[in-house]
Amino acid sequence: MRALRVELLNTGSELLLGTVRDSHLSWLGRELLPLGLRINRQMTLPDGAPIRDAILESFSRADILLVTGGLGPTTDDVTREIVAELLGQKLIFNSETLNRIQERCKRRGFDFQPRMERQAMTPESATVLSNDNGTAPGLYLPPVEGISWSSPHIFLLPGPPRELQPMALAHVLPFLKNLAQHHSCGVLQECRVYKVVGMGESMLETKIGLELSKRSDLEVGYCARPNEVDFRLIGSKAILEEVEPFVLAAVGDHLVSEDQESMEEIIVELLRESASTLATAESCTGGHLANRITNVSGASAAFLEGFITYSNSSKTDILGVPPAMIEANGAVSEEVVRAMAEGALQKSGARFALATTGIAGPDGGTSEKPVGTVWLALAESGKPTFSWKESIPTDRITFKQVVSQSALDRLRRRLKRSD
Amino acid sequence: MRALRVELLNTGSELLLGTVRDSHLSWLGRELLPLGLRINRQMTLPDGAPIRDAILESFSRADILLVTGGLGPTTDDVTREIVAELLGQKLIFNSETLNRIQERCKRRGFDFQPRMERQAMTPESATVLSNDNGTAPGLYLPPVEGISWSSPHIFLLPGPPRELQPMALAHVLPFLKNLAQHHSCGVLQECRVYKVVGMGESMLETKIGLELSKRSDLEVGYCARPNEVDFRLIGSKAILEEVEPFVLAAVGDHLVSEDQESMEEIIVELLRESASTLATAESCTGGHLANRITNVSGASAAFLEGFITYSNSSKTDILGVPPAMIEANGAVSEEVVRAMAEGALQKSGARFALATTGIAGPDGGTSEKPVGTVWLALAESGKPTFSWKESIPTDRITFKQVVSQSALDRLRRRLKRSD
Repeated sequence: MRALRVELLNTGSELLLGTVRDSHLSWLGRELLPLGLRINRQMTLPDGAPIRDAILESFSRADILLVTGGLGPTTDDVTREIVAELLGQKLIFNSETLNRIQERCKRRGFDFQPRMERQAMTPESATVLSNDNGTAPGLYLPPVEGISWSSPHIFLLPGPPRELQPMALAHVLPFLKNLAQHHSCGVLQECRVYKVVGMGESMLETKIGLELSKRSDLEVGYCARPNEVDFRLIGSKAILEEVEPFVLAAVGDHLVSEDQESMEEIIVELLRESASTLATAESCTGGHLANRITNVSGASAAFLEGFITYSNSSKTDILGVPPAMIEANGAVSEEVVRAMAEGALQKSGARFALATTGIAGPDGGTSEKPVGTVWLALAESGKPTFSWKESIPTDRITFKQVVSQSALDRLRRRLKRSD
Repeated sequence: MRALRVELLNTGSELLLGTVRDSHLSWLGRELLPLGLRINRQMTLPDGAPIRDAILESFSRADILLVTGGLGPTTDDVTREIVAELLGQKLIFNSETLNRIQERCKRRGFDFQPRMERQAMTPESATVLSNDNGTAPGLYLPPVEGISWSSPHIFLLPGPPRELQPMALAHVLPFLKNLAQHHSCGVLQECRVYKVVGMGESMLETKIGLELSKRSDLEVGYCARPNEVDFRLIGSKAILEEVEPFVLAAVGDHLVSEDQESMEEIIVELLRESASTLATAESCTGGHLANRITNVSGASAAFLEGFITYSNSSKTDILGVPPAMIEANGAVSEEVVRAMAEGALQKSGARFALATTGIAGPDGGTSEKPVGTVWLALAESGKPTFSWKESIPTDRITFKQVVSQSALDRLRRRLKRSD
C-alpha cells in the first residue's frame, strides 16, 4: 500500500510579499513525522482566487490537505467560501460558533465586530474545530466523491501560529494518527538528526554519508547552518539503531545532540546535571547569548545573571576591566575578553562565565581588526581562563548567531569532559 | 500586457521535515516588490525526483522560475541534473568553476573534497553565477522552446541564505529589474505597510479597511502578530499618497512605522535623534529586549548596557533591589520592577531604563500570580518612574516577544511626546 500523501497549502499575501515568515511548515513537518506521515508538497498562494486552482490541483495528488489562513473576519479571507464552492456545498450559519466568538470578545474585553459573523458560516459537511486562542474556528471536511475528482481529507486551519498549534494538537494530529495507523501496512519510519558542530557537510559525507547512502533501507540527508550541520537519517527503528555506533564513532565530540535538541537545551541540561551555574558578559552579541539560554524552560536553575557591557565605560564600571587595558589593547582584544569573563565570574559567583567582544559591523572595522573579528573567553572558578579568536565577516544577525554558537560549544565541551 | 509571473521552488527535505525553517520566500518577496514583481506561487519539494514534476508544472505558468537548494556536493543534491535533463542539455565540466572552488578551500583552510567536483558540472546553455560565500555556484538558464512546452527564465540558487542573498543581489535582482522594466507597460505598484501596535485586526478593518476596500485601485491586506498588526496597502504611488492622511488620522499614535521598519529600528532612531541613552534590566525576558535593540546597526550610539538579573540575589547585588522588598512582595511585583528600572538608571547613567519581571512559564505560576503575569517599568532621569502590569499566558518565546514589544512601545510613546 502506498504511503498517505500530505500536502500543505499556506495562504496569505503577506507570506509572498515577505512581511511575514511562515512557521507552519516546519512545525507541522516535525509533528507529523512521529505519526509516520510526511508533508510531500507545500505551497504558498496569495489571498483570493489563486487559492482555488491550487486546492483543485491538490485533489488529484493528496490524501490529506492542510490549508492555513484565510479564515479571519476581513475581506481578504476567502478560504471557507472557496472550499465550499469546490465541494458544491452551501455555507450554513452556525449559531454555536457565533456564541463562542461573542463570549470570547466579552471575556477579553474586546468589542464584538459585526464582521466576525462571517466566521460562523460553515460548509454543510464540515465539522467545526474550536479555537481557544482566537475567533476563527477551524473546519474539517471529509472526502467527497465528485464527478471528475474526489477530494481528500481537508483541514482548514487559522493562520496565526498561536491559534493553529493548539488546534492541531487537540483536533488534527489525533485524527491523522488514527488515519495513518489504519492505513499503514509497512514499517513505521523514524527520523534521527545528529546535530554536529565543527565538521562541514562534505566532510560528513566523506566520513559517513557515502557509506550509508549505499543502503536502500536508509535515507541520508544534510542541512548546513552557520556553525552547525544537521546530519539526518530516516529508516526503521531497528536500522537506525544498527548504524548508530558507526555514526557516533565518526562524529566523535563534534556531536551536539540527537533527536533535534538545540545547543542551548543541551547546555542547560548539562549545567543542571552537574549542578553548575553560568553568567555571561556580552559586548558584540548584545544579549543574544543570554537570550538563547533563557529561551530554555528551566534555565533559571543554572543561569544566574548576564551583563551586556556595550560601552567601554560599562566594561569598566560593571566588570572591572581597567580603562588602561582598554586604552592599550582596544575593547576587542584578548586581554579585555579575559577580564570581562573573569569579572563576570567574580561578580556573579557562578562556576562558569562566557564573554564576547567583537566587531559585528557593518561599521566599526579597521584594517587591523576588520568587521567580523571577535574574541571569546570561558572562565571557570579555580581554573585558568581559556580565550580564543575567530573571524566571522557576515551580516549582523548571523554574526551574533555564530559567535554565541561558538561560545556555547566551548562550554559544552568543557562540561562533557568534566563528567 | 499581463504582469510577469514569478514562481519560487524551494527544495530540501529538511524544510518539509521541519528541521529547518525557510527564509528565502520572505527575503525574495521583499526584494522583488520594488522591481514591480511579486512571487505568485511558492512551493517546497523534497530532495530528489519530485522536484522534476514541480519544475515541469511551473513551465506552463511562470515567466521566471527561481529554484533554491540542491546544488551542494552531496548525493541528495540533484537540481542541476534534473534541469539539464528537462531542457535536453548535457552537463559540461567547467574548469573555471572548479578553480574557484579549490581556491576557496585553500583560502579558508578546508581540505578539497573530490565530491565538490560535481559542483563544476554546468548545463550547456547556462551562465555561471559566482558564489563568494560558499562552493556551489548559481546558474542562469535562458528560456528554451521545447516541442510541447517553453521554459521560463530559470535561476538555480544555493540553499544557505548567506550564500543566496549576496548572489541574488549581485546577479539575479539586476537582471530581473531590467526584464521587468522592458516588459511593463502599466503603472508600477508600490507596497506600504503601516505597522500598528495596540489596535486589533478587526478594529483596523472597521476604522479604515472597509472604506478603502471599496476602491478598485487599491489592495488592502492585514497581518497580525503578537502585539503588532501590519496594515498593508498596494497601489500606485499617487493613490497611496492620496489615502495616506485618512490612514494616519485613523491609526493615530498606534502607528509604529511605515515602510517595514521594525519597532527596534524606530527606537534606536528616536534615541539617536534625541541624543538619548538607554539601559535595560531584564528578568523574564532574559536578554531578548537587549538583543532586539542590539540587532540594529548603530545601536551602540544609544544603548549603553543591559543587566539580566535572573536570580533574586542578582537583582539585589547588581541593581540594589532590597532583599526585604523581594521578600515582602515577591520578585514579580510593582515594587521590584520599579527598583530594577531605577537601579539600572542609576548604575548606567543613561537617560532611560526599561525593566521586566514576570513568569514566562511553563512552570512557576501560582493562583495569585499565574504564568504570564508580568510587571514592566520605564524610568527616566529626573522624571517619575512609570510601571504597568500585563497578563500574557502563552508559550515562552511568544511571551518574551510580547513583553519586549510592550516595553519598547512604551518607550516609543515617551520619545515621541518629548520631540
